[in-house]
Amino acid sequence: MAEQDDLKPWQWSEATWRAIVNKVRGGKTLLPERWKDGARCAVALSFDSDHETGELRHGGKSFGKMSQGEYGARSGIKRILRLLDRHAVPASFFQPAVSALLHPQEVKSVVAAGHELAIHSWIHEFNSTLGYEAERDLNFRAADVLEKISGKRAVGMRTASWDFSPHTLRIIREMGLLYDSSLMADDDPYELLEDGKPTGVVELPVEWIRDDAIYFNMDRMASLRPYTAPDAVFDIFRRELEVAHAEGGLYVLTMHPHVIGHRSRIWILEEIVKMAKALPGTWIATHADIAAYCAAMAGLKR
Amino acid sequence: MAEQDDLKPWQWSEATWRAIVNKVRGGKTLLPERWKDGARCAVALSFDSDHETGELRHGGKSFGKMSQGEYGARSGIKRILRLLDRHAVPASFFQPAVSALLHPQEVKSVVAAGHELAIHSWIHEFNSTLGYEAERDLNFRAADVLEKISGKRAVGMRTASWDFSPHTLRIIREMGLLYDSSLMADDDPYELLEDGKPTGVVELPVEWIRDDAIYFNMDRMASLRPYTAPDAVFDIFRRELEVAHAEGGLYVLTMHPHVIGHRSRIWILEEIVKMAKALPGTWIATHADIAAYCAAMAGLKR
Amino acid sequence: MAEQDDLKPWQWSEATWRAIVNKVRGGKTLLPERWKDGARCAVALSFDSDHETGELRHGGKSFGKMSQGEYGARSGIKRILRLLDRHAVPASFFQPAVSALLHPQEVKSVVAAGHELAIHSWIHEFNSTLGYEAERDLNFRAADVLEKISGKRAVGMRTASWDFSPHTLRIIREMGLLYDSSLMADDDPYELLEDGKPTGVVELPVEWIRDDAIYFNMDRMASLRPYTAPDAVFDIFRRELEVAHAEGGLYVLTMHPHVIGHRSRIWILEEIVKMAKALPGTWIATHADIAAYCAAMAGLKR
Amino acid sequence: MAEQDDLKPWQWSEATWRAIVNKVRGGKTLLPERWKDGARCAVALSFDSDHETGELRHGGKSFGKMSQGEYGARSGIKRILRLLDRHAVPASFFQPAVSALLHPQEVKSVVAAGHELAIHSWIHEFNSTLGYEAERDLNFRAADVLEKISGKRAVGMRTASWDFSPHTLRIIREMGLLYDSSLMADDDPYELLEDGKPTGVVELPVEWIRDDAIYFNMDRMASLRPYTAPDAVFDIFRRELEVAHAEGGLYVLTMHPHVIGHRSRIWILEEIVKMAKALPGTWIATHADIAAYCAAMAGLKR
Repeated sequence: MAEQDDLKPWQWSEATWRAIVNKVRGGKTLLPERWKDGARCAVALSFDSDHETGELRHGGKSFGKMSQGEYGARSGIKRILRLLDRHAVPASFFQPAVSALLHPQEVKSVVAAGHELAIHSWIHEFNSTLGYEAERDLNFRAADVLEKISGKRAVGMRTASWDFSPHTLRIIREMGLLYDSSLMADDDPYELLEDGKPTGVVELPVEWIRDDAIYFNMDRMASLRPYTAPDAVFDIFRRELEVAHAEGGLYVLTMHPHVIGHRSRIWILEEIVKMAKALPGTWIATHADIAAYCAAMAGLKR
Repeated sequence: MAEQDDLKPWQWSEATWRAIVNKVRGGKTLLPERWKDGARCAVALSFDSDHETGELRHGGKSFGKMSQGEYGARSGIKRILRLLDRHAVPASFFQPAVSALLHPQEVKSVVAAGHELAIHSWIHEFNSTLGYEAERDLNFRAADVLEKISGKRAVGMRTASWDFSPHTLRIIREMGLLYDSSLMADDDPYELLEDGKPTGVVELPVEWIRDDAIYFNMDRMASLRPYTAPDAVFDIFRRELEVAHAEGGLYVLTMHPHVIGHRSRIWILEEIVKMAKALPGTWIATHADIAAYCAAMAGLKR
Repeated sequence: MAEQDDLKPWQWSEATWRAIVNKVRGGKTLLPERWKDGARCAVALSFDSDHETGELRHGGKSFGKMSQGEYGARSGIKRILRLLDRHAVPASFFQPAVSALLHPQEVKSVVAAGHELAIHSWIHEFNSTLGYEAERDLNFRAADVLEKISGKRAVGMRTASWDFSPHTLRIIREMGLLYDSSLMADDDPYELLEDGKPTGVVELPVEWIRDDAIYFNMDRMASLRPYTAPDAVFDIFRRELEVAHAEGGLYVLTMHPHVIGHRSRIWILEEIVKMAKALPGTWIATHADIAAYCAAMAGLKR
Repeated sequence: MAEQDDLKPWQWSEATWRAIVNKVRGGKTLLPERWKDGARCAVALSFDSDHETGELRHGGKSFGKMSQGEYGARSGIKRILRLLDRHAVPASFFQPAVSALLHPQEVKSVVAAGHELAIHSWIHEFNSTLGYEAERDLNFRAADVLEKISGKRAVGMRTASWDFSPHTLRIIREMGLLYDSSLMADDDPYELLEDGKPTGVVELPVEWIRDDAIYFNMDRMASLRPYTAPDAVFDIFRRELEVAHAEGGLYVLTMHPHVIGHRSRIWILEEIVKMAKALPGTWIATHADIAAYCAAMAGLKR
């Protein structure tokens, strides 16, 4: 893909843009005929427990921003775990290794409560700024850290900031992971293709639409403000869930303890959980369970 | 216009700023006395099927953003075509050539359903960064690609990002197009003037106000977030339609399969379609049919 | 003020920051005991008729942006003038000289309808980037242009983008103007001080809060989007008016033909006008009439 | 921490990122079993009286921005003081020294009304751009200025822009302050740790969520706009208060005279005050009184 860098995109040959598009692309759908035990719809709640790494990855220069992340570990995660326990629903927690090392008791209590722990980078680094070697090394080490603390090997990954590099899919395969949850080509699960060839890796697609942080983040320097009213965020999350249910599809919701965990926002999660439980035939499960079910139904081979 | 570059705008001579303003400007209105078959108002629904080109034009570096566009082709377009079919309304699809080459079956199904296919750049490049030769070459090649896949020569163009260069109008005329749909000087159709002279080219004006992407786009790096609630976006689209109907004017709505096609947003399109059908005397038609009607009523000469 | 540039603000001497603050500052209030004819509250509606100059001042490189401004002259201004006429209320129009030269018929119809025409820069240039000589020359020439077209000498000024330079007040005084309407230190009228001394110039204060453009502007490159719902903008304008009435104060509202003039927004102006007329004892007047009344009541000397 | 600068965060040793995180961190909770006189919840209203310093700290180049801040001193503060007096509730005012020197009568009237005056930098400078010596000197001088004008030594500090540097906590201790109110690791009060060791300093945590400026600020150059409707801001402040009350916690609200003091926003403060008074068992107090109570209950040692 040397041409990619020398020419402007409108000067590229067809081979060039086709190669880029084919590098990582959606393959066959993995939406099952019926969800587990005849359920009509699947709901996957996830929490990216970034905590202090959201600022550390930028160099850790602001103690204000560090304390914003610290809130996740100190206050947010507790409200979330109590809520999930009260409603008896499982969820998936994606945690950077450094965040896990800073909060090992949190990791243990998440796993002890029956939730899934999955890979989410080393220190919330941007994959696209690393080379293959560095990205591979950081992810393998992250998997080891999570296993050491939790006693269980993670089967899935979510890239930090959903920054999926040209090397990410190769590394996922080398790690033998069951699924990724960072891409957005569909609402429902699908198989990832690498250079046009099936990989056996399940994609459980995310979308910024179903992410608490984009509506609520505050970043003095980046001109980001929490301009959207909590009511409006709930309305969006609700609409996505209702149509997922009507279509018999998958609903993946991404949240962050230091974002959704606040007093004025935690009700959104509670209402979504209540709705999911009230909608007939909804299977609320971890990413790992949903990915395994889809892979089995489709006879996927890794 | 050498003076344009050497001096600050407040130092320009009157000849300079008059020449700039006159380069491309609105001429006589093409709003007909009565719309087709005595209709009171015309509604033109359009979809810019950019898909992966939204990211390819920036170099194709992010697979996350690529998958966001891929969603348009994989999920969004299907919901849209089903909806248009259910309500039996025609629409216009503006598609970059590279997007059409990546999704030829989509193009064929759009045309087979009776919708219009029209020109929308080569790879969603910014016209204002090209010279005359490059812009001309890309647009002619784009027209050829669309014709080869669809079997029909396009009669209209919408510039990518509505980035209308000093050369665009000249190229539109050289291509013999009936209409453009990229400028915003009116709500209703008008004739374009080039250097103060009538061109016979119909402008079907757009506006960011009636564009789904500006409210809903998410761009990590550009500090863009989907801050506006779907309800509020519907409210804006609805108000524009109601006044267009009250005035007996034209209503052009621009959407994108990877934006409006999402589960929490597709209802907006459905409600607008229902409203348009419920308002008495509304003619819902393709851009091509509306432009041809206006040109005929006004006796426009190209 | 040499120290101002050599040192960091926290290193400045008291004399330095006091001199900066005193350069242009609010003096005594000009809020009269009673408004004209015993009215309880004064309402000043204003329109900044920038049209194409919003883009020309940046070099006039985008025909899309030029057409956005052109909309003001072609469509927006007509809806506004009809509305003001229907409700028989006067308003003030601030127009850059280049905009007036491009649209002399508009200027004449504004004045013929009994509205005020006032100074609003040459080509919407930023004053703070000019020196004293250039700013002075552009403003005197702008006043001449407006007088030549309208037959009347303007008595007030609003700086473009409310960019009030260290020289603006001196120039206002040299021009012998009655009032400025660009600063924000109060809701109610006040006298401007220059270097701590009374100037006799009336300030009719504006605020971004009461400006349509900040909620509705769309600028691809500056990450500005019309994120706020029209309902919310009306709600803000309404609250400002209600409290102005309750306090017996002044209400200055700033709008733009190419912003408020759109089909989905013009209702906001209509509702505000209706409210203002319905609130007991409201005096709706031009900036010039209000400033003259305040100056007379306070016995202001220029 | 030399490694911090030479390496990328993902290359840091564990010792490096642990040292950064431990520099300033939350220690034991200072949430008392019961609030004063058996109250169920504590409410701390605060106003950052920045006025002109918001622009002075950037060099004082814009008189428009200067007048935006001037509004706080001229109009906003008066509405706020009247409102607090009408409802007989105390509050804390954090004021930069330069702002206090510009408005000594305001400072005196704030203190005379029984409110707390506390430290808020010299001229609203960013601490993280200063070295230890400069930050220390500015804060000691700021404390002296406030004492000289008000006759009372301040016992607490809020950093300007909540920009807490690596030196801030050390300086707070050298100043012998009771509390800081700039960090965000919890909703409820906690003890600050420095390099992992208890400091005896009380943190009364703030959050951007409970800050009027982030929703309402307007900055032409920084692409910041007041996009959020006042109703939505009230809804957020209300939700935070309701859950604080339900949890028996602390509610810290940060406002600015030039922001909340406007006609269309002051009602938000009034409604929050009414709610706080109506919720059973709410203790509305100054930051100083709340911090002293928490420190006493926990037997904190400085």
